[in-house]
Amino acid sequence: MFGFFERSWDPAAKHCYVTGGSQGLGLALALDLVKRGAHVSIIARNQARLDAALEVLEEARLDKTQQIHAYSFSLATFEESKAALDAACAVHGGRVPDALFFCAGASTPRFFVETSPEQLEQTFVDGYWVQAWSALAAAKMLAKQRAKGVKIVFVASTLAYMSFVGYSSYAPAKTALRALADSLRSELMLYDADVHLFCPPTMRTAGYERENLTKPAITLAIEETDEGISPEDGARAILSGIRSGQAHIAADFLTHLFRASTRGSTPYNNPIVDAVLGCIAWIAVPVWRRSVDARVRKHREDHERYLQTQGFYDAD
Amino acid sequence: MFGFFERSWDPAAKHCYVTGGSQGLGLALALDLVKRGAHVSIIARNQARLDAALEVLEEARLDKTQQIHAYSFSLATFEESKAALDAACAVHGGRVPDALFFCAGASTPRFFVETSPEQLEQTFVDGYWVQAWSALAAAKMLAKQRAKGVKIVFVASTLAYMSFVGYSSYAPAKTALRALADSLRSELMLYDADVHLFCPPTMRTAGYERENLTKPAITLAIEETDEGISPEDGARAILSGIRSGQAHIAADFLTHLFRASTRGSTPYNNPIVDAVLGCIAWIAVPVWRRSVDARVRKHREDHERYLQTQGFYDAD
Repeated sequence: MFGFFERSWDPAAKHCYVTGGSQGLGLALALDLVKRGAHVSIIARNQARLDAALEVLEEARLDKTQQIHAYSFSLATFEESKAALDAACAVHGGRVPDALFFCAGASTPRFFVETSPEQLEQTFVDGYWVQAWSALAAAKMLAKQRAKGVKIVFVASTLAYMSFVGYSSYAPAKTALRALADSLRSELMLYDADVHLFCPPTMRTAGYERENLTKPAITLAIEETDEGISPEDGARAILSGIRSGQAHIAADFLTHLFRASTRGSTPYNNPIVDAVLGCIAWIAVPVWRRSVDARVRKHREDHERYLQTQGFYDAD
Repeated sequence: MFGFFERSWDPAAKHCYVTGGSQGLGLALALDLVKRGAHVSIIARNQARLDAALEVLEEARLDKTQQIHAYSFSLATFEESKAALDAACAVHGGRVPDALFFCAGASTPRFFVETSPEQLEQTFVDGYWVQAWSALAAAKMLAKQRAKGVKIVFVASTLAYMSFVGYSSYAPAKTALRALADSLRSELMLYDADVHLFCPPTMRTAGYERENLTKPAITLAIEETDEGISPEDGARAILSGIRSGQAHIAADFLTHLFRASTRGSTPYNNPIVDAVLGCIAWIAVPVWRRSVDARVRKHREDHERYLQTQGFYDAD
C-alpha cells in the first residue's frame, strides 16, 4: 500500500527461522517463504500440529536442496528459546539465521479487576517474553558471530499502538514488544542488523477463536465491526514491508492510522503519506475514542451486575 | 504549560498513597501533598530512608489531624503490593486511597547483547511490575468497595514514547506502563476512576546517579545535552496535570513533542496545541533520530573493541 521505495530482499536460499510456525500467521509466512525458495525452520510446541505443518511446507518446496525442518520447543524461557534456536541452526553449521520471524504468541482478554496475578504474568509471557527471549538469544548469537545483515521481525498487534477496556494485560505486552523493536532497531545497527515490527489487526485464526472465549462482552461489542484479515494477508504484508524497509509494518488502514500517529522516534514509512495519515488520525481517532468511552460509561450497570453474578464482591 | 482547562483537585484531607515515597520524585510529591493538607502514606523498602523522609514530612504538616505514615514493603510481587496497600488503608477504615501515585521504579541501562536473562526480567520488575502490582491491588479494592472518583497516577518516562540504544529493557517496561495506563483509563471508567500517566525526562535523583553507573558510553553520549529536571519540578507537573485532567502528563518540551506525536488513542491535552506539537515533531524527531542513528553507526568499531575487552566473544 505504501511501498513506494521497494528494496529487494529475496529469501531464496536464506535460512528463515519462524516461531509459532505450525499454524496461523507463522504457518502462512513459512509457506510463503518455502515457495520463494528459502530454507525454513518452524518452531512450536505441539508435535502433531508441527507434523501437519511440515507436510504442507514439504509439498510447496521448490527444489530438493531446501532445508525444511520443524522443532518442538516451548519458548517461555530464555533457555528453551536458545535451545530452539541452536537446534534449528545446527543443520546450517551453527550460523545465525538470515531472517528470524517471531510469530509466537497468544492473547487472553479479561477485565483487569478479575485478573489473577498469575494470569497477568502469564499474558506477559504469551505476549512479550516468547518473542523477547528469542530476540535475546538471536542478538547474542549474531553479535558473537559478527554476522551482518540479519533481519529480525517481531509480531505485535494494532494494540501495540492503542488500547481499551479488556486489553489491560495484552496491550502492555504488545506495546512493550514495540518498544523492544524500536530499541533494537537502534542498538542492532551496531551489527548492521535490520529490525522490523509487524502490527496486525484481528487475524482470523484458531488463536482468535480461542481469545474470544474469554473476551469481555463490552470488548466484543466494541470490536464487532472489525472484519480482520487472513493469515495469508498478514504474511504478504510482512514480506512486502521488509522489501520496503519499513520499521513498522501494518496490513490495514486503521493500523496505518494508529501507526502514523503513534510515531515515537520510529522512522516513517513515507514522510508525506504518514503526515496525511497523521492528520486523518488527529480527527478520526478522538471521534472513535469518544464513542468507545461513551459505550464503556453506559456499560456500568451491566458490568456491576456481571461482577455480582461472578461472585466478585463476595470473594476475599 | 498547557493547562488551559484547569479543573480543581484539592488533596486536602484526602488519603494519598505514594510508592517510592522515601526519596526522589516520590518524596517531593509526598511533601507537596502534605503541604496541601493531605493524609499521606509513603511506601518504600529501606527503613532508614523512610524514617528520614517521615521526619521531613512531619515538619511540613499543616495540622495535627493529618495522617502521615511510612510503611516498609517491597513491591516486587502482587502479594507484597497488596499487603502494603492494606497496611496503609488500615488507619483509614480500610477504604481505598483517594489518590494513588506509583513513583516506585528503577532503570538499569545496558547493551541488550550483554544482558543476562535474569537482568532482563529484573528490569521489568523494576520498571513495570512494581507499579502494575499496586495498580492491580488498587483496582480490585476500588471495584469491590464501589468507590468513585479514585485517582491513579503511574510514573513512566519519556522512554515510554520512544527508545534508542541502551534502553532495550527499560523502554519496553515503561512503554508497557503507558499501555497499562491507557487500558485502565478505559476500563476504570466503569468505576468513575481517573487514570493519569506522568512521563518525566531525566530527573536529577540518586536513582539517576545509580543508572549512569551501568549506562553504555554511547547512551551517555547521546544524552549529554540533557539537563533534566528536579524531583520538585516533577511533583509540580504531576499535580498541575491532574488539575488539568491530562491523561498523559509531561514536564518538559521534548517529552511534550513525543507525547503529542505518540498519541495512540490517548486523549489530547489540548487539540490545537497538540496538533502544533505534532507538526513540530514531524520535522524535529526525524532530524534527531538521524543524528542518533549516525552516531550509533559510527560507534561500531569502538563497540566491537569494548565487547572484546569484556570477554564477550570468549564466553559461551
